[in-house]
Amino acid sequence: MLSYENLSTEELKAKKEELMKKYNELKLLNLDLNMARGKPSKEQLDLSLGMIENFDVKDLTKTKDNKDPRNYLNLDETVEAREFFADLLDVKKEMVFIGGNSSLNLMYTYISNAMQFGIMGNTPWNKLEKVKFLCPCPGYDRHFAICELFNIEMINIKINKDGPDVQKIKELVEKDNLIKGLWCVPKYSNPTGITYSDEIVKALASLKPAAKDFRIFWDNAYFIHDLNEKKDELLNIFDECEKNNNMNMVLEFASTSKITFPGSGVSALITSEENIKDIKKIVSKQIICYNSVNQIMHYKFLSSKEKVEEHMKKHAKIIKPKFDLVLKTFEEKLKPLKIANWTNPNGGYFISFNSLDGCAKRIFNLCENVGVILTSPGATFPYQKDPDDKNIRIAPTYPNIDELKTALEVFCLCVKIASIEKFLN
Amino acid sequence: MLSYENLSTEELKAKKEELMKKYNELKLLNLDLNMARGKPSKEQLDLSLGMIENFDVKDLTKTKDNKDPRNYLNLDETVEAREFFADLLDVKKEMVFIGGNSSLNLMYTYISNAMQFGIMGNTPWNKLEKVKFLCPCPGYDRHFAICELFNIEMINIKINKDGPDVQKIKELVEKDNLIKGLWCVPKYSNPTGITYSDEIVKALASLKPAAKDFRIFWDNAYFIHDLNEKKDELLNIFDECEKNNNMNMVLEFASTSKITFPGSGVSALITSEENIKDIKKIVSKQIICYNSVNQIMHYKFLSSKEKVEEHMKKHAKIIKPKFDLVLKTFEEKLKPLKIANWTNPNGGYFISFNSLDGCAKRIFNLCENVGVILTSPGATFPYQKDPDDKNIRIAPTYPNIDELKTALEVFCLCVKIASIEKFLN
Repeated sequence: MLSYENLSTEELKAKKEELMKKYNELKLLNLDLNMARGKPSKEQLDLSLGMIENFDVKDLTKTKDNKDPRNYLNLDETVEAREFFADLLDVKKEMVFIGGNSSLNLMYTYISNAMQFGIMGNTPWNKLEKVKFLCPCPGYDRHFAICELFNIEMINIKINKDGPDVQKIKELVEKDNLIKGLWCVPKYSNPTGITYSDEIVKALASLKPAAKDFRIFWDNAYFIHDLNEKKDELLNIFDECEKNNNMNMVLEFASTSKITFPGSGVSALITSEENIKDIKKIVSKQIICYNSVNQIMHYKFLSSKEKVEEHMKKHAKIIKPKFDLVLKTFEEKLKPLKIANWTNPNGGYFISFNSLDGCAKRIFNLCENVGVILTSPGATFPYQKDPDDKNIRIAPTYPNIDELKTALEVFCLCVKIASIEKFLN
Repeated sequence: MLSYENLSTEELKAKKEELMKKYNELKLLNLDLNMARGKPSKEQLDLSLGMIENFDVKDLTKTKDNKDPRNYLNLDETVEAREFFADLLDVKKEMVFIGGNSSLNLMYTYISNAMQFGIMGNTPWNKLEKVKFLCPCPGYDRHFAICELFNIEMINIKINKDGPDVQKIKELVEKDNLIKGLWCVPKYSNPTGITYSDEIVKALASLKPAAKDFRIFWDNAYFIHDLNEKKDELLNIFDECEKNNNMNMVLEFASTSKITFPGSGVSALITSEENIKDIKKIVSKQIICYNSVNQIMHYKFLSSKEKVEEHMKKHAKIIKPKFDLVLKTFEEKLKPLKIANWTNPNGGYFISFNSLDGCAKRIFNLCENVGVILTSPGATFPYQKDPDDKNIRIAPTYPNIDELKTALEVFCLCVKIASIEKFLN
C-alpha cells in the first residue's frame, strides 16, 4: 500500500470512488454500534455479581467499630471503607473521605463549594473577578463541562508522552493567583492512556502556586485498571507533596466504578486531614451520610488490594483482546497510508486517535451516518474545541468483538474517505 | 398529685430535695441512652434484610426498557424506579426524578443550584441583595441548617394543629419577591406529628407568590409512615396546583430511608416536567447517574404501594408500643402537674414536647448529665433559637423498650426539677 500523500489526484479520486461504494453498501446494513463511552461490557459486569449473590447479610449487622451500617451514620463513618481505599491507594486512612456512587460528583461538590463558600477561609471563587483552570488536553470531557458550567476559564495545556507540559504549568500557576485548579488523570490518562512519569509527578508536587487555594484534581480513575502483566507505575504524589510541605494542594479521586458496577459503586476523595476537615464542615450540611450498606458490600467482596488486582485481571482478560483488535486493525489498515497516529495504552479505557488535521468532525459524521457512534469530536478539549480537529477518543470496551470488528471496519473506511477528501481539497 | 402551681415555696423546696436525691442516684448508673435522632431500631432494620438476602441477581440484567442497571445509565433512566415512586405518591411517572441515597441532598442540590445558576432563567439567588425562606416551626433542623449555610434569612411561621399559619404565609409571599422558599413537612410533621388539613393544602397550592421562582419544599418524609390503622390523609397538592395553574411551585421530596435502610435507600423529587427539565440541565453535569443497582433492589423488594403499606405495618408494630409508652408515661407522671404539653401523633418519628417557658435548655442539661441525650434544645427552630425555650423533640424509635423506660424516667424527673426551679426563681 502506498501512503496517500504519494498518490496523484487521479489515483485519489479513483480510490475515493471505490471507498464510497463500500461505504454505501455499509449504509444498507442499518448498523447500531457504539464506541463512544468508556463503559464496561456485560461480560465484565457479570464478574461482580458475586458481590450481591454471595453476600451474607450478617455482615451488615456491625461495622468494625460497632456501628450499624444499615442505619444513619455520621458522615464518612464506615471505618472499613476508609481502610480499604487507604490500602488501595497507599495512604493513611485519615486521608480518606468516602463519598457516594460518583467520584465526579465529589469533584463537582468540591468546586461548587469553593465557588460558594471558599476553601479554608479563602475568598469564595464566586467573588473573584475570574477563576481559571489549567486543562491538559486531550482530556476528560466531564471535567471540562464542570468548568464550563461555572464559567471557569479553561487554559489548554499540551500533554506529552510523560504527562502534561509541566514547565508551562509551573510558569502559569506560580505567577497567576486566579489559577485555582489543574485537572489531571495521572494514570492511563483519559483519553491518551499515558501515565505521568516520576519527574512530572515530582514537578507537580513541588509547585509553589500563587493562590493558596490552588488545587490539583488528581482524578486517579484508572489507578488499578491495567491491561498487561507489566504495569505502568505512578508515583504516590502525596509522598512528594509531603517533602514539599504541599499536602493541601492535591485532591485525589478514585472509585470502584470500573471495578464493580459503574454508577453503583463507591467513591473516595484522598487528601490532607486539614482539607478533609474543611470539606466535612460543608458536606455535613448537604447530606447525612453516604450509602454505607453499599460500602460494606464492596468491602466484603473486594476486601484488599491483592483481591482487587486479581479481580482486575479478569477484566483485563476480557478487554485486552478488544484493545489488541483496535491496534491490529489500525496497524494493518491505516499505518501504511500515513494518515493517522494513535496511542498504545497499558491500561485504562481508551485509545486516543489522531487523524490528519481538520478531519475528525468529518470522520465522526461519516461514521454516524452508517450507524457507528464515536465520542463527539472536540469532546476531549475545553469548550469542545479541538484546535486541530483531529482527536477522536476510541472506547473499545463496550461492544463485543464482532461488533467491534464491524465498527472498526466502518471507522477505518471513514478515516480513509475523510483523508482523501482533505488531500483533494 | 397537685399541680406545681398550687404548691407553696416550702412544698416546692421539699419536693426538689426529694427529686434531687433521686437524680443523684440515677447519676451513679452511668446511663448512655439516646432519644435524640429519628432513627429506626435494629429490629426495624432487620425487616428489610430480605431485600438483599432474597434478591435474584438475574433481575439486574435488564430494566423494563432493556437497559443494564449495572452499567452507567443516563441520569434518571431507570423506568421502574420512577414508576414505583409515581405509584407511591399518586403522580404521573413523568413528574418523578430519582436521586441518590438522600432526599435531603436533593433539597440541598436544588437550593445550591438556585443560588448559583438560578431557576428557569431567573436571576441566581446569589445575585440578589437577600433571599428569604419561610420556616414553619418547630420544624426540621436540617432544613434550617441549609438556609443558614447559604445565609438565607429565615422567617418563623407559627405551626398550628392543621398546619402552618397560611394567612401569614400568603400575606408575606404575595408581597415580597425576595421570599423564595417555604419549608413544609406536610404529613406527620417533624417534630409536631401533625398533618396539614385539606384547607391548608388548598390555600398553599393557590398562593400567588410575588417571586416567579418561589418554591414550596414539600418534604413528604413520612408519607406512608403510619402508626395506626386509622391514618391521616394528606391531600395530593399537585391536584390542587393543577387547578391553580401552579405546577412549578411545588417540589415534593420522598425517600425509602425509613422504609428500608436510612442513608442507603433511594430518594425522589416529584414536580412538574418543566421543573425536572430545568433540574436535569444542571444535575447532568454534576453526576453521570445515581445508583441504579440499588434502585432495582428496592423496586424488587417493595414493588408497589400495597406492598409498602404491608411492610410499614411491620414497622408500626415495632414502634407503636414505644410511642404509647412515652404518652402513657407523660400522662401519668407529668399531666397532673400541669408543667408540660405534648403531641399525640398518628405517624412519623417524633413527639413534640413543650415544657414551661424557659425550661428546655435546663431539661436538656439535666438529662445530659445523667447520660440521656435529647435533641438539642432550639434545634427545631431557625438559628437554633427557640423563642420560648420550651420545645423538645422526643424520638422514641431507636432505644429498646427497657432503655426507653429508663430514659423517660430520667426525662420526667428532669422536667419536674427544671419546672420547680422555675417556680422558685
